[in-house]
Amino acid sequence: MSAEPSLPTPSSSPRFGVWLIGARGSVATTAIAGCAAVAAGLHPPAGMVTETPDFTSCGLPALSSLVFGGHDTVDCPLPKRAEHLADGGVLPHGLPSAVHAELVAADREIRPGGPLPGDTDGGSGRTQDEWIDVFAADIRDFVRRQGLAGAVVVNVASTEPAPTDGTLPPSSLYAAAALRAGCPYVNFTPSTGLHHPALAPLAESSGLPYAGRDGKTGQTLLRSVLGPMFRQRALAVRAWSGTNLLGGGDGAALADPAAAAAKNAGKERVLADTLGAAPEGEVHIDDVPALGDWKTAWDHIAFDGFLGSRMILQTIWQGCDSALAAPLVLDLARLVARAHDRGLSGPLSELGFYFKDPVGDGPSSLAEQYAELRRFAGRLRDGADDRGAQR
Amino acid sequence: MSAEPSLPTPSSSPRFGVWLIGARGSVATTAIAGCAAVAAGLHPPAGMVTETPDFTSCGLPALSSLVFGGHDTVDCPLPKRAEHLADGGVLPHGLPSAVHAELVAADREIRPGGPLPGDTDGGSGRTQDEWIDVFAADIRDFVRRQGLAGAVVVNVASTEPAPTDGTLPPSSLYAAAALRAGCPYVNFTPSTGLHHPALAPLAESSGLPYAGRDGKTGQTLLRSVLGPMFRQRALAVRAWSGTNLLGGGDGAALADPAAAAAKNAGKERVLADTLGAAPEGEVHIDDVPALGDWKTAWDHIAFDGFLGSRMILQTIWQGCDSALAAPLVLDLARLVARAHDRGLSGPLSELGFYFKDPVGDGPSSLAEQYAELRRFAGRLRDGADDRGAQR
Amino acid sequence: MSAEPSLPTPSSSPRFGVWLIGARGSVATTAIAGCAAVAAGLHPPAGMVTETPDFTSCGLPALSSLVFGGHDTVDCPLPKRAEHLADGGVLPHGLPSAVHAELVAADREIRPGGPLPGDTDGGSGRTQDEWIDVFAADIRDFVRRQGLAGAVVVNVASTEPAPTDGTLPPSSLYAAAALRAGCPYVNFTPSTGLHHPALAPLAESSGLPYAGRDGKTGQTLLRSVLGPMFRQRALAVRAWSGTNLLGGGDGAALADPAAAAAKNAGKERVLADTLGAAPEGEVHIDDVPALGDWKTAWDHIAFDGFLGSRMILQTIWQGCDSALAAPLVLDLARLVARAHDRGLSGPLSELGFYFKDPVGDGPSSLAEQYAELRRFAGRLRDGADDRGAQR
Amino acid sequence: MSAEPSLPTPSSSPRFGVWLIGARGSVATTAIAGCAAVAAGLHPPAGMVTETPDFTSCGLPALSSLVFGGHDTVDCPLPKRAEHLADGGVLPHGLPSAVHAELVAADREIRPGGPLPGDTDGGSGRTQDEWIDVFAADIRDFVRRQGLAGAVVVNVASTEPAPTDGTLPPSSLYAAAALRAGCPYVNFTPSTGLHHPALAPLAESSGLPYAGRDGKTGQTLLRSVLGPMFRQRALAVRAWSGTNLLGGGDGAALADPAAAAAKNAGKERVLADTLGAAPEGEVHIDDVPALGDWKTAWDHIAFDGFLGSRMILQTIWQGCDSALAAPLVLDLARLVARAHDRGLSGPLSELGFYFKDPVGDGPSSLAEQYAELRRFAGRLRDGADDRGAQR
Repeated sequence: MSAEPSLPTPSSSPRFGVWLIGARGSVATTAIAGCAAVAAGLHPPAGMVTETPDFTSCGLPALSSLVFGGHDTVDCPLPKRAEHLADGGVLPHGLPSAVHAELVAADREIRPGGPLPGDTDGGSGRTQDEWIDVFAADIRDFVRRQGLAGAVVVNVASTEPAPTDGTLPPSSLYAAAALRAGCPYVNFTPSTGLHHPALAPLAESSGLPYAGRDGKTGQTLLRSVLGPMFRQRALAVRAWSGTNLLGGGDGAALADPAAAAAKNAGKERVLADTLGAAPEGEVHIDDVPALGDWKTAWDHIAFDGFLGSRMILQTIWQGCDSALAAPLVLDLARLVARAHDRGLSGPLSELGFYFKDPVGDGPSSLAEQYAELRRFAGRLRDGADDRGAQR
Repeated sequence: MSAEPSLPTPSSSPRFGVWLIGARGSVATTAIAGCAAVAAGLHPPAGMVTETPDFTSCGLPALSSLVFGGHDTVDCPLPKRAEHLADGGVLPHGLPSAVHAELVAADREIRPGGPLPGDTDGGSGRTQDEWIDVFAADIRDFVRRQGLAGAVVVNVASTEPAPTDGTLPPSSLYAAAALRAGCPYVNFTPSTGLHHPALAPLAESSGLPYAGRDGKTGQTLLRSVLGPMFRQRALAVRAWSGTNLLGGGDGAALADPAAAAAKNAGKERVLADTLGAAPEGEVHIDDVPALGDWKTAWDHIAFDGFLGSRMILQTIWQGCDSALAAPLVLDLARLVARAHDRGLSGPLSELGFYFKDPVGDGPSSLAEQYAELRRFAGRLRDGADDRGAQR
Repeated sequence: MSAEPSLPTPSSSPRFGVWLIGARGSVATTAIAGCAAVAAGLHPPAGMVTETPDFTSCGLPALSSLVFGGHDTVDCPLPKRAEHLADGGVLPHGLPSAVHAELVAADREIRPGGPLPGDTDGGSGRTQDEWIDVFAADIRDFVRRQGLAGAVVVNVASTEPAPTDGTLPPSSLYAAAALRAGCPYVNFTPSTGLHHPALAPLAESSGLPYAGRDGKTGQTLLRSVLGPMFRQRALAVRAWSGTNLLGGGDGAALADPAAAAAKNAGKERVLADTLGAAPEGEVHIDDVPALGDWKTAWDHIAFDGFLGSRMILQTIWQGCDSALAAPLVLDLARLVARAHDRGLSGPLSELGFYFKDPVGDGPSSLAEQYAELRRFAGRLRDGADDRGAQR
Repeated sequence: MSAEPSLPTPSSSPRFGVWLIGARGSVATTAIAGCAAVAAGLHPPAGMVTETPDFTSCGLPALSSLVFGGHDTVDCPLPKRAEHLADGGVLPHGLPSAVHAELVAADREIRPGGPLPGDTDGGSGRTQDEWIDVFAADIRDFVRRQGLAGAVVVNVASTEPAPTDGTLPPSSLYAAAALRAGCPYVNFTPSTGLHHPALAPLAESSGLPYAGRDGKTGQTLLRSVLGPMFRQRALAVRAWSGTNLLGGGDGAALADPAAAAAKNAGKERVLADTLGAAPEGEVHIDDVPALGDWKTAWDHIAFDGFLGSRMILQTIWQGCDSALAAPLVLDLARLVARAHDRGLSGPLSELGFYFKDPVGDGPSSLAEQYAELRRFAGRLRDGADDRGAQR
């Protein structure tokens, strides 16, 4: 890493790996480029909760100590991908060249991904267990070669359809590889990942912390504050309908009804949990290539007030999913790396703030999830003195 | 009251007064009609937080034990006013006739109001102190004649302009009268009420609880959950703009820039408190008579995500202010009556859940305000055994 | 009809029949009740184009001269149906009782409908031709019994799925019956009706005028003015997406994907015709029972301006389909009755103003369609002197 | 011009001047840069009506034959201004450098502007007539030095407040200068320009064509198609309310109530003309610097359907005013140059398609205005053979 003068990481400070499944996707590219830009002071850390005062002195790895690598099935190099994102307005113009060295460095640490969803062995003749071995070896090599104090594996690949048979879908192969390599695992997508029943024993015996699933970035973020509002005010929600328009790879992936079903399950869980019961209404996800990486989400909520008066709330959210997701990915990598370091294991239900469908039993309203997250920060802080990785 | 068979209030149970300033307005009429309708089981208690499980066994007065009266400067009888509201869709058709007896009973307890804003003595030759005496006598007579265990005074009159000289505006005369009559006071409007410096000594020496001000019913309710969301996610709000369209008396009153200024101050306080700083942006309140008692509020929020990406959230709230306010008025009357009964005094900052510009020092996010309200319910419950007024 | 003093139709003036397929549905009930109400001067003729000055002296049948009847498969009497609509806010409270006599009179002229979509013979053992005969006889009896100068058949029944085999769907049986009974036919729905190839010879040989199909009431009405705007300004529409939320019977019928497909074809035709090419984007129709007869349609239009700048227009339409459709049904009955009287035959392409998917070759922008409609009025007017049916 | 190889304008073809008042503003910069980009084939001519087939062979000056100059009171050079616009997303990245030569050439032809609104003589000691002389000389010099076949003066400066006394406001000084220099005049703003009574004799005697005022770019464009839709369908509009949020210089200028009043008058005229009467409702224009050159316009339209049913249409327009205005400015310069060439004079009411408050007596619905524009193109075409300036 001596060739990257912009990342001041003297050999005496520990460095941490972030291994991204889908490392050449929009979210991963934005996270890698953005980490470098914020570490270098080019941008304020908007959207990063771990950079707010409550998280100081928690012993989180510094942004400048993060080293990126990952798996992907596509070849487009990260610097080129970043240029595409800048053309689409996701990254600021000029950023790809400003962080070119960091993008090149991360790109060198990307290894070929394996079978695509629905494809048993990727034409490789490998068994599922062999795939897991190959992936785990890739991760271990990364940690060793870079001299890292540890690594967190984060799934940011395209949503895969819910599996219909007993075989492990690709997301589960990567999740198993993470544990086999001794790394905590975070599932930022609605794909199966560690949720597969065949992986439950491994998850339990590994002694590793894990978190997920399905990052709560836009429409569902809103729902997690609006749902509690209606409930706290005793207003009866009659119907909650939503339409999402998005282009980019995500739009195309979610145009597959099976993939969309996985995504929508998370959205509906938030409503059912926060309202106490699932209201009428559907959620549509439309692939609209003209919108590129930008997303529009419209929600229409019909509710009854006093004496049955009919009222309506509509929300229109126009955002860029990659820009919403990337800082959360960095947050999660830092929090989970620190949790691992503190010896925490199993499902990190305290991270429900970040997810549509959180592991473990936590509250479903954003405000309570935020309170839990701050308490979690306190737990991490209490042990901040006993180790070297501090900010 | 023996002529009102629908209110089963045996003489052995205590009954409580709700004295409404603006007793013939939309909010008051809806509260009176709705209380009777819900008490009689004609409608579920949608919008009433005090009817949710957390508030059971808190010793709150039963809805059927509430007796209404008040001051107003207009003559239109409550049954006729209720018919108008039914024509405008605020009350269900058929409700005015179903609760006709209760409306007639409340109408009999309405006494003439005093000077209008900007009018020093209403042409009466009375001094301000004499006005306070007259109003206080009206309230005391009501309590005595009805044999009530107590009464709460709630201001639901049209918003008055902020006073520009030292004299007490009408809302403050009524507030002073409440205290002089030994009654707790709730200011559901942005008018001055007890906030006048000349009333501070009286408020302190009275030993009475009070709450306010400016009920949080629609756009500001939303803001009190959206503001915290942006802050918790470290998203930088650049501009928050809003337009409110409303007809009815409220629209006309708020078309007065001075009255609107009072209202807007509360709205802006919520943003500044929840976001940490006031963003760019204005709030408009337009009188649109064609909308009658229905209101549309549009909010446009420009915020920055990761790496300065520009995003926008828009919300459109279409509701009926009277139907949103009335159940909160009933909640407040019950909670404050019980607080008085429990011997609480001074500003009830735990009721910030209900207000744009709450008295005392409480949190500004709805979720935290709700948590405070539940704790408050716990305090009321702890003493529920030592008295007879239970549900 | 001598028992209905509110309809002043002296025996010397001709009276015209309006035979409604789906005569007990929301649209039919609203049309029948509304015709009586407007004729009696209880309401202004909002939404009725034929009551604007351009249509005076065109020889259209007076509203008071219209006599209603029809087919339906359900039993709920019109007065009761009207009460339901008043409860849902579609009809004004008090209207059902004000026009009770007219509703009862129309209800007496409703005959049992036949097979439902997908049901070959309704369990009756009748052949398709026999069904047509029965229906035609019903219509002829109506005309004779009421002593009418003629009748127009208008299909306002629930949308049926597009037929998949060669047999005539129910809507086509009724259309054939209209022609067999010598009556002009109007298809206000997207169902097949006269569009079936097997009916083409009959339509041509009948010498009767006909019009359709699929009334343009809300979202598509908007599209027919917005599409031309974009084209005239040379703005490149990239994607046009829409979601419709509606309850009532219509919502349930259109939740059937096959029925929705029929409806959406018309919506898309309007875009393709007015923009010159079909843009990206989907249309969803969701059944949301909580909305009752009210509909919300959201459209999101992404377009490119100068130098590729990305812009967005969104529209939200909240209306009541029955209230939008009913005056158009009355317009069409009057215009087509008069066209028949004037000896016009075949597809009335000049009525494209009213339809999503008009018969014949007419313009697709609303403004040009309106100009055509006014020219058509002129043609009807030119012959207004040669007959007795004047307003 | 030999130093600008990208504009292939052989000396044998006539070249036409476009003299812009406010030549360094957003609209002017976008028009100049965009004209070069489209002429060079870098972008399709989106938003330019004169590039659609109906305007071929009308003898309009080619884009490559347009030469730009103008007046402005600010110094920022056009290339730098263009970079700012690219940073704000108004111009595509890379465009300023691609058309750098053309921007430099135009910048050399910009002369200092005169007094600002409210400032009688700009501290210069000049009389109004002397200012007009100076401006006219600037324009004549431009035409002579560049060897132009003629020039059109277009006002695209910031909106000035309506003048309150008899003196000519700055926009009128420039308008008078245009006529004195023998050039047609187009007022793309709501400022006074030629509408000043003191200029009426000059306008009449000059024999020059002129057009205006106030370009119809966004919210009002929409209103000019929605207003006719409601009227044609006989739907009674009860209230039409609007809020505009915009940053950039335009937002600041229109935050001045006097300037906003000028702008709003045009918007309201469109409603009153297309609906037949002005409905209830206000229009707000808010300066929101965070939005930069992007504008959001929200409209809320309450209308009554059949039997008084209450319905609502809302529209949200998100666009970039400069990108909407610039192609219209180019259209107008070409059309008016050609009209001048054809010997037309006086108010060009046929150009109402482009304006909120058009000169002369023309229709107010966009569709009819478009039909007029096409007829006007036909008139220009009829004489296309008798001169050299062809495309």
